[in-house]
Amino acid sequence: MSERLPVAVDAMGGDNAPTVIVAGAKLAVEKFGVGVVLVGDPDRLGETGSLPVLPASEVVEMGAEPASSVRRLKDSSIVRAAEAVRDGAASSLLSAGNTGAAMAASLLRMGRIKGVARPAIAVPFPVPGSTPTTVLDCGANADCQPEWLVQFAVLGSVYARERFGLAEPRVGILTIGEEAGKGNALVRTACELLENGDWVDRCGARYLGNVEGRDLMIGTADVVVTDGFTGNVVLKSLEGGFAVFERTVREALTSTPAVAATADVVEPVLDPVFETFDPALTGAAMLLGTRGVALISHGSSSPMAIAHAISTADQLVDIGIVERLRQSMTPSS
Amino acid sequence: MSERLPVAVDAMGGDNAPTVIVAGAKLAVEKFGVGVVLVGDPDRLGETGSLPVLPASEVVEMGAEPASSVRRLKDSSIVRAAEAVRDGAASSLLSAGNTGAAMAASLLRMGRIKGVARPAIAVPFPVPGSTPTTVLDCGANADCQPEWLVQFAVLGSVYARERFGLAEPRVGILTIGEEAGKGNALVRTACELLENGDWVDRCGARYLGNVEGRDLMIGTADVVVTDGFTGNVVLKSLEGGFAVFERTVREALTSTPAVAATADVVEPVLDPVFETFDPALTGAAMLLGTRGVALISHGSSSPMAIAHAISTADQLVDIGIVERLRQSMTPSS
Repeated sequence: MSERLPVAVDAMGGDNAPTVIVAGAKLAVEKFGVGVVLVGDPDRLGETGSLPVLPASEVVEMGAEPASSVRRLKDSSIVRAAEAVRDGAASSLLSAGNTGAAMAASLLRMGRIKGVARPAIAVPFPVPGSTPTTVLDCGANADCQPEWLVQFAVLGSVYARERFGLAEPRVGILTIGEEAGKGNALVRTACELLENGDWVDRCGARYLGNVEGRDLMIGTADVVVTDGFTGNVVLKSLEGGFAVFERTVREALTSTPAVAATADVVEPVLDPVFETFDPALTGAAMLLGTRGVALISHGSSSPMAIAHAISTADQLVDIGIVERLRQSMTPSS
Repeated sequence: MSERLPVAVDAMGGDNAPTVIVAGAKLAVEKFGVGVVLVGDPDRLGETGSLPVLPASEVVEMGAEPASSVRRLKDSSIVRAAEAVRDGAASSLLSAGNTGAAMAASLLRMGRIKGVARPAIAVPFPVPGSTPTTVLDCGANADCQPEWLVQFAVLGSVYARERFGLAEPRVGILTIGEEAGKGNALVRTACELLENGDWVDRCGARYLGNVEGRDLMIGTADVVVTDGFTGNVVLKSLEGGFAVFERTVREALTSTPAVAATADVVEPVLDPVFETFDPALTGAAMLLGTRGVALISHGSSSPMAIAHAISTADQLVDIGIVERLRQSMTPSS
């Protein structure tokens, strides 16, 4: 068992909460030896075994308006989880619930790292056979200032280095052409700022310039910065596209008796491919820029995906990710 | 053979031009009975058989800056093709070359339909087992005014109705949440404009409100409007994502002798699935809003994909798409 504080797990958040979340928390303890505290309504959690429970009587539902819900539902599981991190009762939090609420609760209860204009959601996009590409912002800030994209580049580089062990993360900006000067007004200004090398020194990154949508899953860059509107639309488009692709492939593979008969041989090699692209398995998103680790898992996560995310939260605490991010925001003397 | 004017085919544009383009043009004549005029350098076209050639000595290369190239290269194949449409020597144009150049040449030589603020690129996104979803703008206008998105809704609705035979196209706006008021500043203002029903009457559409990235390939809407930056990033992301997915699946299916032995049975059912998502096969994009039909094919199009695109151009002329679009821009009395 880890010596560290437990991970506060929002037991009420997720498409199949609390059942799947509680099961995932148990797995995290058993398989990875990570300490966990469940946050939720004790009367609704079912059998929690030996796991400690931090009581919270309210729930921010999946479709609820985030900011007002977090302000109103002061005894909700996500708010109590964020407070546990703030108060030193937990090392970090994990939620598979309402993403906006997890973001708002973390921001309001933990506060921002000094110098961070706006925290951003960093999502690892799968690159088959290689390190994921960290894309941010994937939805925290629909409208961005160009300066924020430079901060995202710094925060994302620190994150990619610490989480994925990259010595010199390669950073690109998402746009619609290869040549300099291509893009919308935001990107053109952000490009000018990114090309001035000061931020690169602060986080040990290398700036690649423009990347396009087709670069996101082939490892062209380790970190890709974009505004939260574009990032979220791309994330959802790819998740939706892969779901359609997987369903269509699976249907084709049962479409005739002859091909259905190959299932025993074909499925064992295809299932891992589908898992590679499953957003519930590719790794939790992290809100970068708050004074505490806040991880956000896909609403449809399985118990094993939740367990992995809890373990990731614990590892990020272990490597001192918040302190590393904080250092990158302090201008070197 | 069609009674209509020939389709002007930019023989010099495309990753494998002119060979693949000329082959596609021949197929269009043989298989679909569509008249074609090749536009390009006669010395470089190779064997053109009985196809007429409109000489053009210059080429706008794939990576060239579009607007300045079109202004400078007055005898380029794409400029001559657009002039052929303008001058009544061709019914329409097809290019698999530099998209920006095809757009600029069409806009500058054909001009805009009266009332159209900015033409937009409309791309059919595949929906397995159903009518494609037409997404626009996929790259003509990186920065958009909210009013333009309303025009895109009208142009896209007319296009979806005429091309895909939809009686009442369902229109959504691409954003990052289901609730009204979600999105960036552009989307929030455009939503307010779209909710006022005047435009709906002009094109016989039905307005659905917000759609998300995950809706693009499941047929939630028939037409999805977005700015050209977001649209292009999403298009390229999905193209890139599917290429990665297909490659990973194909590699898995040859990874052991046992699974490789199933190829005779598995490949014939999977190949059509991959074709469903192949951007070179899912249908050419149309520039909506110019006074002439301009179709843009993927640079990697096969001869058969080029032939299909030529046939589509011919059909769009046959149904009088430009006149239909023009009528939708004229306020009804």
